[in-house]
Amino acid sequence: MKFIVGKNELSLEYRGQTIFKHSKNDPVIFVGYGREEIEAYRGNFKIEDNVDARIPLSDFELAGNSVKFKAFGVECTLNVREENERLHLSFESNESFNRFWIRLYAEEKEYVYGCGEQASYFNLRGRNFPLWTSEPGVGRDKSTLTTFYADKYDRAGGDYYNTYYPEPTFVSSRKYWLHADSFAYSEFNFKNSDFHELHFWEVPNEIILEYGTSYLDVVTRLTDYTGRPPMLPEWLLDGIVLGVQGGTDQVLGYLDQALDAGVKVNGLWCQDWAGINITSFGKRLYWNWVWNEEQYPRLKEEIVKMNKKGVKFLSYICPFLLENETLFNYAQEHDYLAKTVDGATYKEDFGEFYCGIVDLTNEFAFEWYKGIIKSNLIELGISGWMADFGEYLPFDCVLANGNGMSKHNEWPVLWARCNYEAVKESGKLGEVFYFMRAGAHGSQKYSTSMWCGDQSVNWELHDGIASVIPSSLSTGIIGNPYTHSDIGGYTSLHGNVRTKELFERWLEMNVWSSYMRSHEGNRPSENFQYYNDEETMQLVAKQSNIRSMLMPYLTELNKEASEKGYPVQRALFMHYEEDELAHSIQYEYLLGSDVLVAPVVEEGALGKKVYLPQDEWVHLWTGEIYKGGEVEVDAPIGYPAVFYLKHSKYRELFEKVGSFNNL
Amino acid sequence: MKFIVGKNELSLEYRGQTIFKHSKNDPVIFVGYGREEIEAYRGNFKIEDNVDARIPLSDFELAGNSVKFKAFGVECTLNVREENERLHLSFESNESFNRFWIRLYAEEKEYVYGCGEQASYFNLRGRNFPLWTSEPGVGRDKSTLTTFYADKYDRAGGDYYNTYYPEPTFVSSRKYWLHADSFAYSEFNFKNSDFHELHFWEVPNEIILEYGTSYLDVVTRLTDYTGRPPMLPEWLLDGIVLGVQGGTDQVLGYLDQALDAGVKVNGLWCQDWAGINITSFGKRLYWNWVWNEEQYPRLKEEIVKMNKKGVKFLSYICPFLLENETLFNYAQEHDYLAKTVDGATYKEDFGEFYCGIVDLTNEFAFEWYKGIIKSNLIELGISGWMADFGEYLPFDCVLANGNGMSKHNEWPVLWARCNYEAVKESGKLGEVFYFMRAGAHGSQKYSTSMWCGDQSVNWELHDGIASVIPSSLSTGIIGNPYTHSDIGGYTSLHGNVRTKELFERWLEMNVWSSYMRSHEGNRPSENFQYYNDEETMQLVAKQSNIRSMLMPYLTELNKEASEKGYPVQRALFMHYEEDELAHSIQYEYLLGSDVLVAPVVEEGALGKKVYLPQDEWVHLWTGEIYKGGEVEVDAPIGYPAVFYLKHSKYRELFEKVGSFNNL
Repeated sequence: MKFIVGKNELSLEYRGQTIFKHSKNDPVIFVGYGREEIEAYRGNFKIEDNVDARIPLSDFELAGNSVKFKAFGVECTLNVREENERLHLSFESNESFNRFWIRLYAEEKEYVYGCGEQASYFNLRGRNFPLWTSEPGVGRDKSTLTTFYADKYDRAGGDYYNTYYPEPTFVSSRKYWLHADSFAYSEFNFKNSDFHELHFWEVPNEIILEYGTSYLDVVTRLTDYTGRPPMLPEWLLDGIVLGVQGGTDQVLGYLDQALDAGVKVNGLWCQDWAGINITSFGKRLYWNWVWNEEQYPRLKEEIVKMNKKGVKFLSYICPFLLENETLFNYAQEHDYLAKTVDGATYKEDFGEFYCGIVDLTNEFAFEWYKGIIKSNLIELGISGWMADFGEYLPFDCVLANGNGMSKHNEWPVLWARCNYEAVKESGKLGEVFYFMRAGAHGSQKYSTSMWCGDQSVNWELHDGIASVIPSSLSTGIIGNPYTHSDIGGYTSLHGNVRTKELFERWLEMNVWSSYMRSHEGNRPSENFQYYNDEETMQLVAKQSNIRSMLMPYLTELNKEASEKGYPVQRALFMHYEEDELAHSIQYEYLLGSDVLVAPVVEEGALGKKVYLPQDEWVHLWTGEIYKGGEVEVDAPIGYPAVFYLKHSKYRELFEKVGSFNNL
Repeated sequence: MKFIVGKNELSLEYRGQTIFKHSKNDPVIFVGYGREEIEAYRGNFKIEDNVDARIPLSDFELAGNSVKFKAFGVECTLNVREENERLHLSFESNESFNRFWIRLYAEEKEYVYGCGEQASYFNLRGRNFPLWTSEPGVGRDKSTLTTFYADKYDRAGGDYYNTYYPEPTFVSSRKYWLHADSFAYSEFNFKNSDFHELHFWEVPNEIILEYGTSYLDVVTRLTDYTGRPPMLPEWLLDGIVLGVQGGTDQVLGYLDQALDAGVKVNGLWCQDWAGINITSFGKRLYWNWVWNEEQYPRLKEEIVKMNKKGVKFLSYICPFLLENETLFNYAQEHDYLAKTVDGATYKEDFGEFYCGIVDLTNEFAFEWYKGIIKSNLIELGISGWMADFGEYLPFDCVLANGNGMSKHNEWPVLWARCNYEAVKESGKLGEVFYFMRAGAHGSQKYSTSMWCGDQSVNWELHDGIASVIPSSLSTGIIGNPYTHSDIGGYTSLHGNVRTKELFERWLEMNVWSSYMRSHEGNRPSENFQYYNDEETMQLVAKQSNIRSMLMPYLTELNKEASEKGYPVQRALFMHYEEDELAHSIQYEYLLGSDVLVAPVVEEGALGKKVYLPQDEWVHLWTGEIYKGGEVEVDAPIGYPAVFYLKHSKYRELFEKVGSFNNL
């Protein structure tokens, strides 16, 4: 670490790399004041900022490892230290500025990835990314009718940067990770050729940065810092979790039907275990997280029976409580709910019902809710659940320790930790798991796995089937190794209805992800369901058995993920670092190091053009060998474009999988 | 004028009114630097700003009538002087800042109007208005499909603030006008309760402000400053200009047909006098401004014959020249065209053809083009024309004196002045006229009249029939007394097609505007035309004759307009200053002082709810008398909601008009 001082100039170097370059006309730090305007509507936020002052701190005084940047009596001191091979930049200012900008050195040919889950653009260079957890939008592309109608009727269309999981953390192709220790609203702007501008609505505590020798090394180092999740339960890797609903008899019927058809079922996910609530949006859940014995009679015994057959039972919970129901009433009596500024219980409007918000900053509320998870879910025999939401926290609510504005971006990880501790204290880590869509710094450790949220049931790039690929790669590269998506997608609105083809393409893709789980979607009866189609049922059987056959390979990836932080789904460049083209590919990926997957995400396609990095690749279904470059292969339903390395130690296994599918 | 100095505080008062209040924490002036990003596409501009520095000048030193606002080395001196009852604020800074903000005192209950032509919101309070001349957008409302498709296919949807005619000039309900002497990109932000923030991409020369005793007095004082147009030719007020096309025989056929039906025709407007160009957008003109003798044989003689019958001939010109045609070639040879940064002729892309741009900053080019107007239009016997465009000037072109960026907002008034001088030097002011859509400071004098541009042929508020009312009121209140709109609207795209009802409602509305002119629209054959419908032809006859009957009243308004700057169409509050409600009404207006018009702008409506200020109003068609408040009247086709003052000196005239229509 060294400072290089010139006339009115200062730069910081670390491990031979430039961290920043300051000069009077191009300062590193700007401080100021702003007044935000925020409108919230059911998890969608319209945010505008009025920046009243933005003061470039053009002058500096260097003293040891501290630089006092200053201008006009305004000061901000940067303290630099190295600790555990990490560079820490911390800041002290002489006024309580609520706006802060820092410009870090960038190279023209640098790629940047991460910032949480990004469904539209994996490479972040060339764009600005506001970081504020929210609904990601329905459509997410102002040129689609899906987005237009979602905006018009629900203010919910979203845009390229909207995400459940924003995180001020990225990985650069210059082989470093960077994390800003701040949960404030922020914007990471990668539009400029010679600097990255990071903007925060506070003076952040610290910015931490660490170099690695390779992308894999960078991810391991990053996850040494963030923490890593426990391994996924082995049972979850093997086969498919069927997302079905309707009560004990109905779901057991689905199970029998699937087993009879030869499906390798490892779990039933019944999100309506606590009951249902029919609204105009679709079939929603009854948000009082108590086993609904009327809808699910004998559930406790049936779970035991299912488990004996190797089938687990999965359910659902979220941090909202339906107004006037038992949990809500208990929480309200004990002062466990978020409040309005007037001291009343904050009631979040979900369209046709209202909910209280468990105040996770209140340690008693936190403990109580953790207890609910333990008693109502884990002790019932439930092996996994969707830990839904986390991104809605209203900016104008009042909490025991903080308020909606200050805790908004942290909320997802508080919610994750509540689930994590419930499982951990029950002694079930690695056995019981949950999946989350919202995220924040710390999700890497506290969320046992992610799912990509609610895609539209269509083929549109920004919100349809393809979008889960950049989503998975971006969450993966910042240390969330396990993610997956609803097989078939979720949101059926504004004329989008799931087709058989869409379901089947999503099914065959998800064989090659962390684990497989299907979903009926928000409007089950209007959308395609595999259980109503004999042909698709056969495909589910085949694909889930392929999944089972892959277990030895998948188990290794599972181990690598939890030991080293390697994401199960990886960008091509993570193993082909010198491949310039690979740095811009976001709709193909590697599953581990040995398998390359190019899912068919185009409606009506029967073949697929694939880019292969220089290596010897075997096409899984034909055994044909390809070198690098662009190739085209047949890819009818059931045969996504999958390749494995000729020199893979799992070659025999892959050959068997290929033959099996061709039976 | 007086400064009031407190501890760290300073305010300026003028004529008993507060102009600004400065304090250390709420400074008046901010200076800084920004880097804009602009994308242009056929007159639509996507503008983003990166503000690198915004420095609040918190401290001040007062010396006489100068205040040095400063913050640690950065300074901006404000010089205040009074001249001709106007307050002039001028600025000098010690660096060449390219961003400047000033906050002027505002009251919570203050209304603001103007800023050029505003089609969406007449009262500007509560919103920010970027001021940059451009296409106004097709749809102009992100919640309409018209806008969605225009955005998707042409990047042309626009938004509430997009306008052909932005001007940094407004009128406040505190009875002052304010004008900023700057053609730079600016934003006038009226969102705050206690200040108006005016933002410029330069340090402006001056801000000028003048109080009046009433709204009418304010407009007169403003137009004393801006200048006023000559009176409209009397013939133009009397009857209707028919917008028709197709060549000499065809248009004379339309004329005979109309005269036979009893239409009071005062002119034929034939925009295709120079030929036509068929494109996918519709029928466009052949942009080489020379009489097309093939399409219009005998035109010169026919004009003489028409004139004898009291019918004038009107045509069209714009500042673009079709590539490789005679005028283009001449201009290019003489170096009269705008250039690219590489020194080549700048060719503006109009979809299916390219055009050169006459460089109006080059005095020789200006004189040459003025000569073209004189020789090719005026000397041919043409009595009026659409002086189209003015808002497209590409920001990246190079001009003889300046460049696209610095001259963009000034361009419309250069174009207006070119037309004005052509008419003036021909000795025809008040006899020959033209109408423009683009505007800038100075249009008040140099544009003989405005028209509201290209509305969509529909009923949508932001771009359909209704939008011409706020457009007319806003241009009017800042000193453009004469405006009107295409009867029937213009833009038929994305499924919008003009109906008979829309045409008829537009026709009956425009009787009550500066003058009447019909338009066939961009796709004549697909849209409703009066000349194909006997019933509508009868309505045109009746309405044009009503127009003729109104001549004594209209002549007085015409005189008032050019002598005092009173707009022909006026907001209700201009004569009812104490009426709070009237300040928010933008779809009704007064025609002069004696007539109140509430056009029917709702599809299928047969009646109209009208707000009447406290007075004695006579319903024109029934003679029924109303006091103020909300009333509802029948309003079938041909009978828009029109009222006159019981005490009007024109009462007898209005009674005759009422009886005539009821015949």
